[in-house]
Amino acid sequence: MGKLENKLEKIVSLAKEASFKLALVDTVVKNRILIQMADALLKEKNKIVSANKKDLEAARRKRLSAAFIDRLTLDETRIQQMSASLIELSKLDDPVGGVIKSWERPNGLKISKVRVPIGVILIIYESRPNVTADCIGLCLKSSNCVILRGGSDALNSNKAIFDILNKVAMKNGIAQGSISFIDSTERKAVDALLKFDDYIDLVMPRGGEGLINEVKNKSRIPVIKHYKGICHVYVDSEADLNMAHRIVFNAKVQRPGVCNAMETLLVHKDAAVRFLPAMIKELQDAGCEIRGCALTKKVARNLKNIKSAKDKDWSTEYLDLILSVRVVDSLDEAIEHINKYGSRHSDSIVTDDKNNARRFLKEIDSACVFVNASTRFTDGYQFGMGAEIGISTDKLHARGPMGLEELTTYKYIIEGSGQIRR
Amino acid sequence: MGKLENKLEKIVSLAKEASFKLALVDTVVKNRILIQMADALLKEKNKIVSANKKDLEAARRKRLSAAFIDRLTLDETRIQQMSASLIELSKLDDPVGGVIKSWERPNGLKISKVRVPIGVILIIYESRPNVTADCIGLCLKSSNCVILRGGSDALNSNKAIFDILNKVAMKNGIAQGSISFIDSTERKAVDALLKFDDYIDLVMPRGGEGLINEVKNKSRIPVIKHYKGICHVYVDSEADLNMAHRIVFNAKVQRPGVCNAMETLLVHKDAAVRFLPAMIKELQDAGCEIRGCALTKKVARNLKNIKSAKDKDWSTEYLDLILSVRVVDSLDEAIEHINKYGSRHSDSIVTDDKNNARRFLKEIDSACVFVNASTRFTDGYQFGMGAEIGISTDKLHARGPMGLEELTTYKYIIEGSGQIRR
Repeated sequence: MGKLENKLEKIVSLAKEASFKLALVDTVVKNRILIQMADALLKEKNKIVSANKKDLEAARRKRLSAAFIDRLTLDETRIQQMSASLIELSKLDDPVGGVIKSWERPNGLKISKVRVPIGVILIIYESRPNVTADCIGLCLKSSNCVILRGGSDALNSNKAIFDILNKVAMKNGIAQGSISFIDSTERKAVDALLKFDDYIDLVMPRGGEGLINEVKNKSRIPVIKHYKGICHVYVDSEADLNMAHRIVFNAKVQRPGVCNAMETLLVHKDAAVRFLPAMIKELQDAGCEIRGCALTKKVARNLKNIKSAKDKDWSTEYLDLILSVRVVDSLDEAIEHINKYGSRHSDSIVTDDKNNARRFLKEIDSACVFVNASTRFTDGYQFGMGAEIGISTDKLHARGPMGLEELTTYKYIIEGSGQIRR
Repeated sequence: MGKLENKLEKIVSLAKEASFKLALVDTVVKNRILIQMADALLKEKNKIVSANKKDLEAARRKRLSAAFIDRLTLDETRIQQMSASLIELSKLDDPVGGVIKSWERPNGLKISKVRVPIGVILIIYESRPNVTADCIGLCLKSSNCVILRGGSDALNSNKAIFDILNKVAMKNGIAQGSISFIDSTERKAVDALLKFDDYIDLVMPRGGEGLINEVKNKSRIPVIKHYKGICHVYVDSEADLNMAHRIVFNAKVQRPGVCNAMETLLVHKDAAVRFLPAMIKELQDAGCEIRGCALTKKVARNLKNIKSAKDKDWSTEYLDLILSVRVVDSLDEAIEHINKYGSRHSDSIVTDDKNNARRFLKEIDSACVFVNASTRFTDGYQFGMGAEIGISTDKLHARGPMGLEELTTYKYIIEGSGQIRR
């Protein structure tokens, strides 16, 4: 094992040890720390801003994109938001220790299924420094040890936030290693971390497709992926077209750069003539580029600037004001299209036909399936979870928005009075 | 991609397609098929026995162990057991479609968390041919497509069982590809399968440590491991020693070859003198080899044949009439020992002290933690689940005994009346 691996193994094995202690910390103590952390971020905001300046200068020197620099920037408002999120977390119920269910067996054994922390969670993320504070807060509240490995372009900002928050935790007697920060920016540090399956229970990559695929292919540790959202709205032949209009516009335009925004619009052929021309016009007026199938172009032939959708468009997450549009023959074709090209994130049908709604809900294989609502509601806060660490596009352990409960696992507690197996 | 990979990709992509159809099959249809499958096993038992004979002859030629040949053997009783298990499955509740919880948001959105099948499950197993029938039954009842890859030494037996059961499924209109059998016995077939993460949702390796580690290290598909059981019983200073005696004897001797049998006995120093000599004597009389720590040997110095436990003993799963014994200074030392050397499977404390029991339940990081009962109860049937596909030693998705519910995931269904995001 090389020098880097040795250094990393010390960090992750300390985290494993700490996880047994963190699991036992009282809710009141965790809440007190979260409130103190929120305070500390505000009090030491100058440290954060000046560390962030270093990252921003380097990013400008490297001529990184404006969008990248926007995500990287920490101003007073954003620091206040990070602080407010920690306060919110302090108000949420602690999932640890909650009894999921319990029952008694004929032989008198009392079995309870009880929520416990997962243990040690590794977060690999890219340029948003607010992820540092969010993940520290979420993992502390759910009693999970967290190991943070952020992108090198945000190293100074992340380190400043970590230092401030970890100091608060240590001052309150939380075990050393409960919150860890990896400052090795080499790529091989990630490779080495992903082999420590004896110490790390879960890895969550948060970032672009490249990062997620790399982690998935290299990891020996279980991975939960927060992957792309190729979300669809399907306007049925039986839709209320005014409602469809509002939902489609909202799903595409309200915030196009996020994973729960619509990327493809499907319209039943019987609704296409009445619905599509006005819809496309309004989207174009809002600055949205349209890439349509042959039928879409035919139906909306009086409109300019409709590009031809290529097969690749159906599986592209634009994260931008671009929409692919397809006219389908039937509900079956819509379902087939979504299950084939979608990313199993969020899909919506607009219809007044209860049978069609029921079939869509049942047959679409996505984490969140909507009837008569915008896909933009796939979100831990909108679902009423209070906080989220992301939206899982995986099927195992947690699917869809992941809040505090989804950051726990369970164990069985069995209480007897001397029972033996016959 | 080579010829083998092409052949395998056809199988797994067909399974993925079939998974959308199998998810929609009615409970009554699935139950009818299970009953017909149970019948077919009995009617065609001669086919199974003669296929099994080929495997047994080859195994004897290869001079495989008696234990191996015992696991491989299918006689009339075992075929009846396989058949009876399928009947049992037909009587259990169908988990698919069950509503886990549902709530309404202030904006009127109705959110439901609903159980759905996982999709396509790959089972990689070793020499027990009954796994073929069990997994086909469990996956059918939970509407999961199953891909079976059994050990080469049981190929004829597995193939015969698969052929009989798949024929019943096909005759009842179940989609082709719902049940698949991999007859390529090359090792690289497994390597290739583990890369098809686009088609397969979950892999469960069932077998020895070598197989499980190989799958874990090579798989891009999420893995749930059914790993070894290094189970402990800890006899506290405050234990009812008669009860402790019965529990320890049961946990070790009743069926030593299974994962929930005890491998290490821990005894508080204040109970050691009163408890250990008679306990060890009784275990030795039952044919059990004892490997003790220095204190154990001192306390039981009047007994013969107590070997010295080496450090390796604490982390060994004997699966045999061998027991390692350690005297500990305190409850803390017992907890530390278990969390360090155990396999997070099943551990039990025998005590009359409620605080000690509470601490043990809380601080032991295992799937099943017992008070005053034998570890041998970790079992889907004993827990009242009706059936089990195994016992997960992982922390994610499912932990401990896995029944039909644990073979499902969930999706969110959101019903609105035109809601858009502000």
